[in-house]
Amino acid sequence: MTDTTYQQLEGRFTRLHRYAHLGAMAGWDQLTMMPTGGNEARAEAMAELSVLMHETLTAPETRRLLAAVEPSSLNEAQQANLREIRREVEDATIMPPSLVEAQSLAGARCEKAWRTCRPNNDWEGFLPTFREVVRLSREEARIRAEAAGCSRYEALLQKFEPGLTLEALDDIFNDLRQWLPGLLSEAVERQRGQDPVLPQGPFGEADQRRLGERVMRWLGFDFEHGRLDVSLHPFCGGVPDDVRLTTRYRSDECLTALMGIIHETGHARYEQNLPEAWRRQPAGRARSMAVHESQSLSFEMQLGRSAAFVRQLRPWLIEALGDQPAFDADNLVRLSQQVRPGLIRVDADEVSYPAHILLRYDIERALIEGEIEVEDIPTRWDEAMQHLLGLDTRGNYRDGCLQDIHWTDGSFGYFPTYSLGAMLAAQLMAAARQAEPQLDARIAEGDPSLLLEWLRTHIWQQGSLLETPELITRATGEALNPEYYRRHLRARYLEG
Amino acid sequence: MTDTTYQQLEGRFTRLHRYAHLGAMAGWDQLTMMPTGGNEARAEAMAELSVLMHETLTAPETRRLLAAVEPSSLNEAQQANLREIRREVEDATIMPPSLVEAQSLAGARCEKAWRTCRPNNDWEGFLPTFREVVRLSREEARIRAEAAGCSRYEALLQKFEPGLTLEALDDIFNDLRQWLPGLLSEAVERQRGQDPVLPQGPFGEADQRRLGERVMRWLGFDFEHGRLDVSLHPFCGGVPDDVRLTTRYRSDECLTALMGIIHETGHARYEQNLPEAWRRQPAGRARSMAVHESQSLSFEMQLGRSAAFVRQLRPWLIEALGDQPAFDADNLVRLSQQVRPGLIRVDADEVSYPAHILLRYDIERALIEGEIEVEDIPTRWDEAMQHLLGLDTRGNYRDGCLQDIHWTDGSFGYFPTYSLGAMLAAQLMAAARQAEPQLDARIAEGDPSLLLEWLRTHIWQQGSLLETPELITRATGEALNPEYYRRHLRARYLEG
Ligand SMILES: [Zn+2]
Ligand SMILES: [Zn+2]
Repeated sequence: MTDTTYQQLEGRFTRLHRYAHLGAMAGWDQLTMMPTGGNEARAEAMAELSVLMHETLTAPETRRLLAAVEPSSLNEAQQANLREIRREVEDATIMPPSLVEAQSLAGARCEKAWRTCRPNNDWEGFLPTFREVVRLSREEARIRAEAAGCSRYEALLQKFEPGLTLEALDDIFNDLRQWLPGLLSEAVERQRGQDPVLPQGPFGEADQRRLGERVMRWLGFDFEHGRLDVSLHPFCGGVPDDVRLTTRYRSDECLTALMGIIHETGHARYEQNLPEAWRRQPAGRARSMAVHESQSLSFEMQLGRSAAFVRQLRPWLIEALGDQPAFDADNLVRLSQQVRPGLIRVDADEVSYPAHILLRYDIERALIEGEIEVEDIPTRWDEAMQHLLGLDTRGNYRDGCLQDIHWTDGSFGYFPTYSLGAMLAAQLMAAARQAEPQLDARIAEGDPSLLLEWLRTHIWQQGSLLETPELITRATGEALNPEYYRRHLRARYLEG
Repeated sequence: MTDTTYQQLEGRFTRLHRYAHLGAMAGWDQLTMMPTGGNEARAEAMAELSVLMHETLTAPETRRLLAAVEPSSLNEAQQANLREIRREVEDATIMPPSLVEAQSLAGARCEKAWRTCRPNNDWEGFLPTFREVVRLSREEARIRAEAAGCSRYEALLQKFEPGLTLEALDDIFNDLRQWLPGLLSEAVERQRGQDPVLPQGPFGEADQRRLGERVMRWLGFDFEHGRLDVSLHPFCGGVPDDVRLTTRYRSDECLTALMGIIHETGHARYEQNLPEAWRRQPAGRARSMAVHESQSLSFEMQLGRSAAFVRQLRPWLIEALGDQPAFDADNLVRLSQQVRPGLIRVDADEVSYPAHILLRYDIERALIEGEIEVEDIPTRWDEAMQHLLGLDTRGNYRDGCLQDIHWTDGSFGYFPTYSLGAMLAAQLMAAARQAEPQLDARIAEGDPSLLLEWLRTHIWQQGSLLETPELITRATGEALNPEYYRRHLRARYLEG
C-alpha cells in the first residue's frame, strides 16, 4: 500500500503543477499576444500567482508532510519524485521573502534601464541599477552557499544545474580553453575565400511560417499539442500538453528564423515527450537547463546544420520561397556552417559560441565571489574578447557587456548551461550513432526517426527521474566529456 | 479613518481579481489559440483555479472579516462594494466545492464533445456528456433554490440577473408573447417582394478584419487594451485592461461578421470603461448579463443596423472589399434590416430573435424543473420552432438544439438575458435621445460620440455601484419596460 502522506504530498504538487500551467500560458500570452496596455494588470496577476505558489510550496503543511513521509515505503520512481519535491521546497524555503521581493523590484528596474541604456551605449547610466542587482545576487549567493556548504558562485550555478560542482565545471571549461582558440582559427582559415552566396529577400512571413511548420512536422512536433507563433525573442513556453514555441521572421533573410524554429523544436519535443505518468509531478519535468539545451542543440546543431539535413532542406526551401542561387545545396551547407567570430553571442556560429560563454562565466564568477566590481566588467570584457576571438570591443558597450538581458534580473550561473548543452548534444549524438549504426544513412534518406526515438527513450522519457550525471551515464556510458564536442567540431569544420 | 477590516476584505478581493485575470486569459486562449490536445490539461488547470477561488471566497477568514466589518464606517461606494462582496461570498458558500469542480470538468468535456458532434449532426454522441452537465445543474439548482427559497430555475436565473424573479420575467415575456408573432408576420409581409441584393464573395479574411478594426476604432475601441481574433463562436473575453473579442469570418458573406464585431465591441467598450478606481473590486465589474447585452445591442441593433449608420458604412465597405450592387446604400439598409425567420439564433434578425429566446427559455426551465429530460429536447425544439417561426427543424440537430454553446457548460438561465438586454437597449436609446436631442443628427453626420458618452456616463462608469433596477431608473427615469422595445421594432420595421 502506498504511503498516504506521500500521496498528500503528490496532491499538493499536482495543484502546483496546475497553477504553473496558468502562469505558463499567461507568460506566453504576454510575449506573443498581449497589447501593451495590458502589461500592468498582467504583471500584477503573475506576481500574485508567484506569491500563491511560494506560499503553497513553503506552507507548514508541506513541510509537515515532507518530515512525515517514509521513503522506505516508496518505489524507486516515487523516491525520485520525493527527492525533486524536497529540492524544490528547500529551494523556496531558503530565500527570505524580503530578499525575493527586493530582487524582483531591482530586476524590473535594471531591465527597464537596460532597454534604454543598451541602444544608447550608456554603460554609466546602466551601472546604478545593475550595482543593486549584483548586491542582492551576492546576498542570495551568500545565503545559498552557507546552506549548501559550497562556494557562492557554485550555489547560484546549482539553481540551474542541480548537483554540478564548480570543480567539475572547471575541469570541462579548462579543457575547452585548451583547444577552442586553435580549432577556431583553423576553421576560419579553412573557410577563407569560400564565402557563401547570401539569400536574397524579401521573404514573406506566411511562406516562412509554412516552411517552418513543415520542418517542425518532419521533426515530429505534434501540432495537436502545440503551436508556432511570433515574438520579439524566440522561446519555447507553454506546458507539455500544449507547447508554444515562437520565432521572429526577417524579410531580408530566411535561415535565421528557420534554424531558430529547429532549435526551439528540440526544446518542444523534449517537453511534449516527458513521461506521461509523471506529468503533474516534479519527477516529470525536464531535467535541467543544460539537458534542455542539449536537446535544442541536438536538433539545431547536430542535425539541423549537418550537410545531410541541409541538403534535404533544399527542395522545401524552393517550394516555399522559390529558387535562387543561395539555395544551391553546397551553398546551403556553407551558409549553415559558416564560422565567423563576431561581437554578439546570439548571432555566433557553433565554433565561436563557447568563447562567448567562457568570457561571461569568468566575469560573473569573479563578480559574485567579490573579486571584481561592476566597474571592472568592461575592461575584463575587452581583454577576453581580444584574447578569445581577436576582436576589439573597447567603448562598444551595446555590442559588448550590455548585449545580454540575463544579468539584468540576476540570472548569474545560467550562461554555462548553454555550452554544457552543446557538449552534451555532441556526446548524445555519438552514443546514438553507436547504438544505431544506420542513423546517419537514414537521416540522409530523409528519415530522422532513429535519432529522435533514441532521444525519446534515453532523455525525454526520463524526465527528472534520474539525477543529471546518472542520466548522462546511462544514456552514453560515461560522464559528461567535452572530447565528443571537440571531435564533432573537428569533424564538421576541419575534416568535413 | 477607513475601517481596516474592510481594507483587509478589499485585499482578499484584489487577490481574487488577479486570479480571475489568469482564468479569463486561459479561457480566451482555450477558445482562440489552444490546440485540441491541450484541452485536458487546460480543463484541469481551470478547475483548480475555480477551486482556489472558491476556497478564497469561502475561507473562514473571509467570513470573519464580513461579520466584523462596520458598514456605518464606510462611504457610499464602499458600502456598494461590500454589498457585492457579500453577494459573491454567499453565492460561493452555497455551492459544495466538489460540485463546483465536477461541473467545471463536465463542462469542459461536454464542450469538447459539442465541437465534434455539432458538425456531425450527432445528437446521440452529444447526449452522454450533456446528460451529466444537466444532472449537475439540477443539483446546483436544487441547492440554490433551497437556500434562496425560490424555484429551481429562478435560482439559476439569478446567477446572471441578481434580483430578477421568475414572476417579473414571465410578466415581461408574456407581454412579448402577445405582440411578437403579430409584429413579426406584419414585418415579413411588409418586406415581401423587396428582397435585397446579396453581397457576392469571396471576401478575404484579412480584408474583413481590417474593415472590422476600422469600425471598432470608430466605435471607440482601444486597441492598446484589447484585440480582435477568430473563434468558432464569437465572444468578448479577457479583462478590462485587455479585452479580447472574437468573430468568425465567412468568405461568401461579409455583413454577419461585421455586425458580430459591432455587437462584441459594445460588450468590449463597457468592459474597457468600467470605473478605474474600482478596477480590482466587485463594485467595479459589469452590472449583469442583461445590462451587458444591452450594451452590445445598443451598438449592434440600435446603432449598427440603423439606416443612419448603415449609410456611413458604404464607403468603408467599398474601400475594404471593392464595390458591388449589394453595397448600394438603400440595399445595405434592406440587408441590415431584413426580417427572415431562420433556424440559427446567432444569425437571427432583430424581430425573430426573441422567438429563439422564448423557445430556449421554455425548454431550459422545464429541463431544470425536471418536467422534461434531455431526450425530450429535440421534439420540444421542433414544436416550438414550428409554432413560433413556422420552420421545420426535424432531424437537423446541427441547426437545432446543438447550435448553441451555452448549455454545454450548464449556463441555464442565461438565454433570457439576451432579450432583456434588447429591451433595455431600446429603453436606453430612447432616454439618450431625450437627453441629447442632436444625437441622431450627429450620428447621421458620422459622429456617434453623443450616444457613446451618454452610455459611458450612465452605464459603463457605474460598474456595479448601483443595483440593476436603480441603475436603469437613474439612467432612464423608469423601471425596465418592454414598451420601448415594441415601439422601436414598430418604428423600424412597420413604420420606417
Ligand atoms: Zn535554447
Ligand atoms: Zn452579446
